[in-house]
Amino acid sequence: MGNNFRSGCPVASTLDIVGDKWSLLIIRDMLLQGKKTFKEFSTSPEGIAPGILSSRLKWLEENELISKQKLPDNQKENIYLLTEKGIELAPVITEIILWSDKNLRKQNADMYSIAEAGFHQDKSQVTEGIQNNYRQLVRETLS
Amino acid sequence: MGNNFRSGCPVASTLDIVGDKWSLLIIRDMLLQGKKTFKEFSTSPEGIAPGILSSRLKWLEENELISKQKLPDNQKENIYLLTEKGIELAPVITEIILWSDKNLRKQNADMYSIAEAGFHQDKSQVTEGIQNNYRQLVRETLS
Repeated sequence: MGNNFRSGCPVASTLDIVGDKWSLLIIRDMLLQGKKTFKEFSTSPEGIAPGILSSRLKWLEENELISKQKLPDNQKENIYLLTEKGIELAPVITEIILWSDKNLRKQNADMYSIAEAGFHQDKSQVTEGIQNNYRQLVRETLS
Repeated sequence: MGNNFRSGCPVASTLDIVGDKWSLLIIRDMLLQGKKTFKEFSTSPEGIAPGILSSRLKWLEENELISKQKLPDNQKENIYLLTEKGIELAPVITEIILWSDKNLRKQNADMYSIAEAGFHQDKSQVTEGIQNNYRQLVRETLS
């Protein structure tokens, strides 16, 4: 892959990889809900179109945020797992959730409550817990 | 504005507002570089097209992340300032910068160093400092 980044700015560089309406939702599905298959991603409430999902998965794999593999006992279905690089986006997602919770409730009256997730008590600890749970899921899936 | 959000998910809701390649770069220009005018935003290294810049500024204003005004001594030029809602995106930008710094340097060899910014020492304090500096700039601009 050549250098297709728009600039040397770290903000722009991240947006060049995940700065679209869908990539972080696929990563959310994996990290927060343990989703692993094309079919599972397809059922998310935002209704991603199959063609977009397919191209975003390919893009995220090319950029090493996710890996695609088959399990020994199921050679038909692809399994997608976040890499460590992908798992490290968790703090970005946490801050997005906290901003939304505080600033978009008036606009989006249907927004889920996040009170029980514990972000407001200790966001670092909750975020690390999410990351460690996901690492455990990766180990179990591949063992 | 009606409820045009894709779902009740807080991650998706934020991406419905700023989940594109440009919005967070305009907010970066304001928050980190103190840019205030259309002309200043136009000179950023990513080369945003005037039509896109215009539509993103309008969108951010509609969603109350920025305000548009004229200063008493300059009735020709619009001045754009982040609202408190916009300023509160700073922690999202900080986590994006840290992720980029750690994970994209191999891909983007031109990426600026962030060593002097102090994020690695105390990201909360640096982020709050950026927010407070910006609030000061708003007060000075409007006084």
